[in-house]
Amino acid sequence: MLLKPYKIQIKTGGIMVAVIHEDTAHQLDLHLGDRVNLKSGRTEVICMLDITKNGFPKSRIGLFAEAYEALNIEKGDTVEVYPADKPASLLPIRAKLDGVRLKPEELNQIVKDIVGGNLSDVEMTYFVSGCYAHGLDDSETAALTKAIVNNGKKLSFKNKIVADKHCIGGVPGNRVTPLVIPIVVAAGILMPKTSSRAITSPAGTADAVESICNVTINAHHLQKIAEKVGGFMVWGGGVDLAAADDHMIKIRNPMSLDPEGMLLASIMAKKHSVSANHVIIDIPVGEEVKMKDAEKAQHLKDRFIKIGKMLGMKVIVMVTDGSQPIGYGVGPYLEMVDVMNVLKNDPNAPEDLKEKGIMEASVLLEMTGKAKKGQGRKMAEELLKSGKAWKKFNEIVDAQGRKKLPKLAKFQVPVVAEKTGVVKVIHNKTIAHIARLAGAPKDVVSGLVIHKKIGDRVKKGDALYTLHANNQDRVNYALDFAIKNSGYDIK
Amino acid sequence: MLLKPYKIQIKTGGIMVAVIHEDTAHQLDLHLGDRVNLKSGRTEVICMLDITKNGFPKSRIGLFAEAYEALNIEKGDTVEVYPADKPASLLPIRAKLDGVRLKPEELNQIVKDIVGGNLSDVEMTYFVSGCYAHGLDDSETAALTKAIVNNGKKLSFKNKIVADKHCIGGVPGNRVTPLVIPIVVAAGILMPKTSSRAITSPAGTADAVESICNVTINAHHLQKIAEKVGGFMVWGGGVDLAAADDHMIKIRNPMSLDPEGMLLASIMAKKHSVSANHVIIDIPVGEEVKMKDAEKAQHLKDRFIKIGKMLGMKVIVMVTDGSQPIGYGVGPYLEMVDVMNVLKNDPNAPEDLKEKGIMEASVLLEMTGKAKKGQGRKMAEELLKSGKAWKKFNEIVDAQGRKKLPKLAKFQVPVVAEKTGVVKVIHNKTIAHIARLAGAPKDVVSGLVIHKKIGDRVKKGDALYTLHANNQDRVNYALDFAIKNSGYDIK
Repeated sequence: MLLKPYKIQIKTGGIMVAVIHEDTAHQLDLHLGDRVNLKSGRTEVICMLDITKNGFPKSRIGLFAEAYEALNIEKGDTVEVYPADKPASLLPIRAKLDGVRLKPEELNQIVKDIVGGNLSDVEMTYFVSGCYAHGLDDSETAALTKAIVNNGKKLSFKNKIVADKHCIGGVPGNRVTPLVIPIVVAAGILMPKTSSRAITSPAGTADAVESICNVTINAHHLQKIAEKVGGFMVWGGGVDLAAADDHMIKIRNPMSLDPEGMLLASIMAKKHSVSANHVIIDIPVGEEVKMKDAEKAQHLKDRFIKIGKMLGMKVIVMVTDGSQPIGYGVGPYLEMVDVMNVLKNDPNAPEDLKEKGIMEASVLLEMTGKAKKGQGRKMAEELLKSGKAWKKFNEIVDAQGRKKLPKLAKFQVPVVAEKTGVVKVIHNKTIAHIARLAGAPKDVVSGLVIHKKIGDRVKKGDALYTLHANNQDRVNYALDFAIKNSGYDIK
Repeated sequence: MLLKPYKIQIKTGGIMVAVIHEDTAHQLDLHLGDRVNLKSGRTEVICMLDITKNGFPKSRIGLFAEAYEALNIEKGDTVEVYPADKPASLLPIRAKLDGVRLKPEELNQIVKDIVGGNLSDVEMTYFVSGCYAHGLDDSETAALTKAIVNNGKKLSFKNKIVADKHCIGGVPGNRVTPLVIPIVVAAGILMPKTSSRAITSPAGTADAVESICNVTINAHHLQKIAEKVGGFMVWGGGVDLAAADDHMIKIRNPMSLDPEGMLLASIMAKKHSVSANHVIIDIPVGEEVKMKDAEKAQHLKDRFIKIGKMLGMKVIVMVTDGSQPIGYGVGPYLEMVDVMNVLKNDPNAPEDLKEKGIMEASVLLEMTGKAKKGQGRKMAEELLKSGKAWKKFNEIVDAQGRKKLPKLAKFQVPVVAEKTGVVKVIHNKTIAHIARLAGAPKDVVSGLVIHKKIGDRVKKGDALYTLHANNQDRVNYALDFAIKNSGYDIK
């Protein structure tokens, strides 16, 4: 049947969608969610069918922007509609829902269809649900990781040893990555690090680094930077590595679902896609971080190591203390100030951040064989103390594209203790929320600077932290909240 | 933030959806799939947020038809956007995915949100997945049934005894309902039957009955028909009973998922919503029907009876032979011809259809107490033979709105046996497919009329069935297919 195209000025961002009138669908024996071939001139595309009851003429076919553009429609063109086959991955998705273990080629087909935009949100949700309800075993997880890597861009290097790190997250201020990279790279180890932006936190590593240099760099340029300075610290989304992951995260977000196998595959795919073979994983454990349970952390640790082996990756997992923020700053630039103070050997640099950076760097130096067993810490400290790490940091910043350092926020307002006592608990989530209310991560210099940590004695009226914000509204939002709930338990 | 509305001329048919530019979303700290409150003048609605990357101005908000209309937007109006809470049912949906048994009030909340258009397709898919992966036990299934009924329209009658029937389906020509209804109603039992239309079959009961009278009748009018003639046979979709069911079926269709508990709840809700308390369920078992496995049929039978009890419904389940088509006609009107021939005591009426109708009617007559035990068959036969059932059938047809009987199809072409032998197998799916190729169910008089059943001796060249179609194209489609694959195994 020939229908007149009608452009819907919206991108679906996923599968291509076409809309026809109910009566037209009936005539063509087509149903909601059917795949249809659309043909206009010599161009053919497959769309998912949506059906509308009224307010839409029977002679027309509505095309969301992607489909309209893919069909190269010109004025006066008509579109021919006929049924198309279902994508091959529906069978294995159904099998997974039934609890069947999937084969590597089946997982690859699913990921291929996800990246190719061949699956609807409903179909992807069934895949996520199946993985959540029945789990993915180690072989499936390794196969899913490979499938994600194979169906995305990949960076390869001449170096035999490629280091990488990952943190499961949830601890405010935990900006260890831009500290570890220059130490490890200064020792001569390649470390091509891609990071993510904040979704619900006050800063992701990419947001923090972006406050002082460019982080959106294409794959070709990244290869050159790696060759020139030995590493980088960029935004993963700018390179389109592990593209399937973004689609799956979109489906997982509404329910905050993290099927363990998918979480593992997602992380490992990002490492594998930059050809990393020596990887450390940081799992902070605490009541207000992603991983609340030490036993589960141990289980996850074992799986990371096993799956790493299956991918030819040496993996060391550290279960760390996630009970309170690390460093002083919470917010993109305020966290980078801490990082730079550590690198510059500033006596006021936060000790906990410095310690965590040295510890992680020393593990990487030993596991890559750069330092002998037991000598990693000494080497890391030396690279820091000598200024070599600071020098390397600046080389990387210059290679990525240095920005002028931003000015600190206009408003800096202390939040004070209501009573005298000892800090017993700092609620990570509350601190993160207040930093976001102050404007982080969008306004890169906003957030807060912490003055008191767990175990510190405070007097009534002492500043617990200082809010940083660039306009009065933001100050008020954050302060109103902090006065009701500072995030500190003092006893 | 105030945005200029832009109407997208499409109905989503589900949750209301608004679209904003990526940068605007960033500024408002909103994410894909977030709920937003939209306010225009005094009107407020909650929408699901979609985010677009380009081809869409930052100052505008795209509104799909339902949202645009709900906001009563007039020229020059702006729309205010701010975050909204997530619907209450996301927590129990998540719990179900984790394998938790849901409470009646949780299931009611989920169904309420489904009917209210508060859940996205992704969220509904998680619910279906959870029910599929972890199952629904008897209490959950009964609670889901009640939730579906409570969140939809309901028909109530003065009669203490209300009979109903249901067939799991998959057998071509199995048009027993319009035969059972007049027999049972003629005996003085109320039988308010709603049926469905064909989705992938050549005819649903509603399609068949519609070939001779109106089947789309509102609830108010149905009550009057029931009072006047004691029963009806209409299309369920015209009454909006069990509305939640349609939403869930939309989600189940892409993967042909039938979570057992949902299937049970869906069927039982349709019975419960017409206040039925004496119900027979027919589960045909055969290689090419929905239920392939006698053991599973037995399991389903037990659950139907248990859940019926929990709902105050007396249920009798019959596991029947689904190995071949029933009656001669396959296609809406051709099936009604069989039904009317049985009711008119025509000597050429199909014996198997007549036998199944009498059997089902007699079970209903006995279970409702209208006939004594062992006397049901005699009563049913008598009602048929005396012409009382045929009279009642005509009363019902008149009450619903009789149509002029359609003319038989213009083209009637036999499909013949390729060899001499005995009919060993008739493939239901092939027969159904050929009937659809001939034009059923859209063209009500098309389909096919079967001449040979399993066990019949045939000579090469004997007609196995006759195709009925109204145009040469349809004849060719069906004949081309039938010549390659008649659907008959002859040995």
